[in-house]
Amino acid sequence: MKQISLSYGSGGKLTYEFITQYILKYFSNPLLEELLDSAVIKKDLFSTDRIAFTIDGYTINPIFFAGGDIGKLSICGTINDLVAVGAEPKLIACSLIIQEGLEFEVIEKVLSSIRNVCETENVKIVTGDTKVVERTACDKIFITTSGIGIIKDNVKLGYDRIKPEDKIIVTGNIAEHGFAILLSRGSYGFEYDIKSDCASLYPLMKKIFDSEYAVELKFLRDATRGGIAAVLNEIVKQNKNVGIELIEENIPVSDEVKSISDILGIDPLYVANEGKMVIITSDSSAEKIVEILTSHPLGKNSKIIGKVTDTYKGKVVMKTLYGAYRIIDMPTAEQLPRIC
Amino acid sequence: MKQISLSYGSGGKLTYEFITQYILKYFSNPLLEELLDSAVIKKDLFSTDRIAFTIDGYTINPIFFAGGDIGKLSICGTINDLVAVGAEPKLIACSLIIQEGLEFEVIEKVLSSIRNVCETENVKIVTGDTKVVERTACDKIFITTSGIGIIKDNVKLGYDRIKPEDKIIVTGNIAEHGFAILLSRGSYGFEYDIKSDCASLYPLMKKIFDSEYAVELKFLRDATRGGIAAVLNEIVKQNKNVGIELIEENIPVSDEVKSISDILGIDPLYVANEGKMVIITSDSSAEKIVEILTSHPLGKNSKIIGKVTDTYKGKVVMKTLYGAYRIIDMPTAEQLPRIC
Repeated sequence: MKQISLSYGSGGKLTYEFITQYILKYFSNPLLEELLDSAVIKKDLFSTDRIAFTIDGYTINPIFFAGGDIGKLSICGTINDLVAVGAEPKLIACSLIIQEGLEFEVIEKVLSSIRNVCETENVKIVTGDTKVVERTACDKIFITTSGIGIIKDNVKLGYDRIKPEDKIIVTGNIAEHGFAILLSRGSYGFEYDIKSDCASLYPLMKKIFDSEYAVELKFLRDATRGGIAAVLNEIVKQNKNVGIELIEENIPVSDEVKSISDILGIDPLYVANEGKMVIITSDSSAEKIVEILTSHPLGKNSKIIGKVTDTYKGKVVMKTLYGAYRIIDMPTAEQLPRIC
Repeated sequence: MKQISLSYGSGGKLTYEFITQYILKYFSNPLLEELLDSAVIKKDLFSTDRIAFTIDGYTINPIFFAGGDIGKLSICGTINDLVAVGAEPKLIACSLIIQEGLEFEVIEKVLSSIRNVCETENVKIVTGDTKVVERTACDKIFITTSGIGIIKDNVKLGYDRIKPEDKIIVTGNIAEHGFAILLSRGSYGFEYDIKSDCASLYPLMKKIFDSEYAVELKFLRDATRGGIAAVLNEIVKQNKNVGIELIEENIPVSDEVKSISDILGIDPLYVANEGKMVIITSDSSAEKIVEILTSHPLGKNSKIIGKVTDTYKGKVVMKTLYGAYRIIDMPTAEQLPRIC
């Protein structure tokens, strides 16, 4: 099987071959085909006053998993980071660091997966870079994607907009990505059927951005590493005037995730998602927003999971199934390295 | 010595600590301090009609070398990619992949180096990401930087603008970065004093962009991996209507590089630079541009090294010191992996 060698990262003949025969094969578009040091973008592409700019490195292990792969993950993750500031994702820059010896078959599978998401989501890869490093210097492939999006004029988000009585929504069942990756790594002696929720949230969130309730949105965050516990704790650290109260029975968790988290003793609140948005919105708009979300396949299990309070300032507490209150702390240790 | 652990990449408490105590310590600015999934940029920052967008991964080994380090390199490299399309560099997104166990002292040295370049060059890190991976999965630290710049209205560049009789300029002595890295890796039994030329080329190129000769520029490229041989070959591959003729005696090479390339048998045309721009400009403007370049410390050894021809279409040839013509091919194999 044809394997990649260090020469493909040399800047010479094989780099040129890699770009023209592999990269352009998958991501052909006029901006990318220019093959310049930077993509040149006309400003009139940006029809609104604000632009979103993000970057994320993806080092997930294994690179193929139930529900996705590192290629799909890298594009969806960057799209979701743009969506989380109210943007429509537009352009992607994609940088690959590849381990010498990785089969081209694997590389093409990843590139093809990237292409599929880009096509479905209507984003374009306009610039990129490829490095090949020795076998001991990297594990298979790392992908870093940077994204640019245009922020809808009617969406104004910020930690400072979050006020007591605002509601907290999560757009579906939590913890599926983290458990899918964890289970893919070892043999646990039980049957399971969990897939990563890896998905672009733009089609779902667009329905809210385009609705009359867009102006009611206070804050959005994609609940990845550290799960919804990390996201909610970061919110109360950034806005110390408020606390957060969750209602355990309202938190959407599939039966499968419930039983696995019981067996393994891992709290799903702390487990990574790759296709779930945490939404903070005004009390009055929350139910309407859930109605819109649940009408879309990506949001069908959306729930109001709690509210912002003026008590417990700087803390996240959860009313448990038994009616007791438990503090949900910022996760402290790494539950699972290389989750994304 | 305090070392980084996987938990710093968990998305939890230590990630938050890393961001607030390390990242914000070095790169504090209002956009970054928002700590959102994406930076939110007002469009009026972009005062011109075109925007440049680029990405590059840096995997250099060793991470500290004579004349620079991976931090300086990652910012200068991204700046130079923006400058190469005629842009003023503005915003940087910075993604770190760090090997578990790397000392914080090393990390801080790299961050501090990034900060120094950003301050001098007036670019801002507005968003970022940090992953920590196991010891076996990465070698020390990889940095991927994405950049946004604004393209000067009077600069129009493109392969199709290159015409016979245009002149080719290089902004100084070549091959210093590559040799500095090569020599840093082994013991060669001779004394040398070569430093990487790693530098931001914006202050130098700004003098041309701001001059009446900006409109005469046809094409720019930062001559990194593969050296000026790779850059020039890529040009004649993209514009097959022209050839390139170099004059060996005009190519600026320091005596030090000359003697080392003699000893090692490596052609400096193929060796990487990290602070040299290849400029293609109209015949009539070339000497004026060299005059401006040589008045700046970064360009003091700038030279016209050859011209565009309507013969040798698709090829780069060089008139040697002995008057013979030699074909300068695209580099084929990797001379030195992890050069940038």
